[in-house]
Amino acid sequence: MDRPTHNPLLDGQAPPPLLIVISGPSGVGKDSVLNRMRELNFPFHFVVTATSRAIRPGEVDGFDYHFVSVERFEAMIQNEEFLEWAMVYGQYKGIPKFEVREAMASGRDVVLRLNVDGAATVQRIAPEAIFIFLAPASPDELERRLSNRHTESRAEIDARLAVAASELERVGQFDYVVINREGHLDDAVSQICAIIAAEKQRVFPRHVRL
Amino acid sequence: MDRPTHNPLLDGQAPPPLLIVISGPSGVGKDSVLNRMRELNFPFHFVVTATSRAIRPGEVDGFDYHFVSVERFEAMIQNEEFLEWAMVYGQYKGIPKFEVREAMASGRDVVLRLNVDGAATVQRIAPEAIFIFLAPASPDELERRLSNRHTESRAEIDARLAVAASELERVGQFDYVVINREGHLDDAVSQICAIIAAEKQRVFPRHVRL
Repeated sequence: MDRPTHNPLLDGQAPPPLLIVISGPSGVGKDSVLNRMRELNFPFHFVVTATSRAIRPGEVDGFDYHFVSVERFEAMIQNEEFLEWAMVYGQYKGIPKFEVREAMASGRDVVLRLNVDGAATVQRIAPEAIFIFLAPASPDELERRLSNRHTESRAEIDARLAVAASELERVGQFDYVVINREGHLDDAVSQICAIIAAEKQRVFPRHVRL
Repeated sequence: MDRPTHNPLLDGQAPPPLLIVISGPSGVGKDSVLNRMRELNFPFHFVVTATSRAIRPGEVDGFDYHFVSVERFEAMIQNEEFLEWAMVYGQYKGIPKFEVREAMASGRDVVLRLNVDGAATVQRIAPEAIFIFLAPASPDELERRLSNRHTESRAEIDARLAVAASELERVGQFDYVVINREGHLDDAVSQICAIIAAEKQRVFPRHVRL
C-alpha cells in the first residue's frame, strides 16, 4: 500500500516541532499558565525571556526570566541576539534567538510568552507558529488580578487596563482564544494542551522556519 | 472595556456546535472509536447511520445502525431524507438529515461516521465541518483487523484493502489525521477529543449551516 509522503504521521514519524505563542493582556495570567504547564512537566521547551526589570520576590533568575542589566540588554540588541524585543512600561523584554533555534533543532516544541505587540512581530517572522490569545473572563477580573499582585502602582494599573481594552480588539490576529477564568487555571491549561495536541494531528503540519 | 462581538468565548458564550466527520478506510476501526467515545459519555450527538445490511451478532438496532429493509431505504432516498447515502459493497448506508439538524439546533456537537466518499459528499454540502481521517498504523494491521472480524469473505477483504490503498491517498482532503494503532484505541480517542476541544477555542469558529 503506497503512502503519501507529505504527512509524517502516516509514515509513523513524529510531526515537526511547533512554535506556540501564548499572548494576551498584561495581568491576564500568562505567567501562571506557563508555570502550571512547567509544574505538570509538559514536554515543551519554555523560552526564558530576558528582561531589564528588577527581580520580584520569589522569582528565579534563568527560570522566570533572564534578569540582565540595561547595558547588557542593549548590547544584545546591538548584536541582534533577539528574535523579538520591546521596551514595555519602561523595561526591556526580549526573546533570545538561540533558545528557540536550539530547541526546535532538537525536535522539541517551543512555547513563547509574549505581549500582543510581540506576538504580532513573531507573526511577521514566523506566520506558521500557533497563536493563542489568553483573555480574561471579564474586565473586572483583569483589574482585580493586576491590583492583587501589588507590583504596579494605581497609575500603572490604569495604563495596563487601557492597553488591555485595545488588545482585546486584536484577537482576530490570533488562531485560538482561551479564557483564563479566576480559579480555573487548569481549564485554561488543558485547553492550551488540547490545542497543541490537535495541531500535531494536522494533515498539513505548520512548518516553522526561523 | 469593549469586546469584539465576533468571538462568542469573549462574551462568555458557548461556541457554535461542531459537525465532526470521522472517516477512513473500511476496517480501520471507526466503529470502535465511536463506541469508545460513547462508553466514555462524551457529550456529542452520535448520528446513527441507516443501513440495509443484515444486523451482526451483538449489534443493536437504533444504536449501532438503523437497520432498515432495502425497500424502506429506497423510499427514504425518494423522499430526500438523507444528508448523504451510498451503495457500499452491495449495501445501502445513509445519514438521515433529521438527526443532524435536530441535534445541531439544540446546540449539541454532531459526530458522523462516514466512508471516504461520504466524507467528500459532506465536504461539498458542509465545508465548515471538521474532517478527521482515521488511518491504520500499517497496511498489515488493516488486513489483520478485517480478517479478525470474520464478517467479510477473502475476496471482500481484498477488495476493501485495494480501496483502502487509494483512500489513503485522499488524506489531503481532510483537516486532521489520527492513527488508530492496534491496542492503543484510547490514544486515538483522546486525540480526537483534543481536536474537538481545540476547534472550540478557534478565534473564528467554523459555523456549519445545513
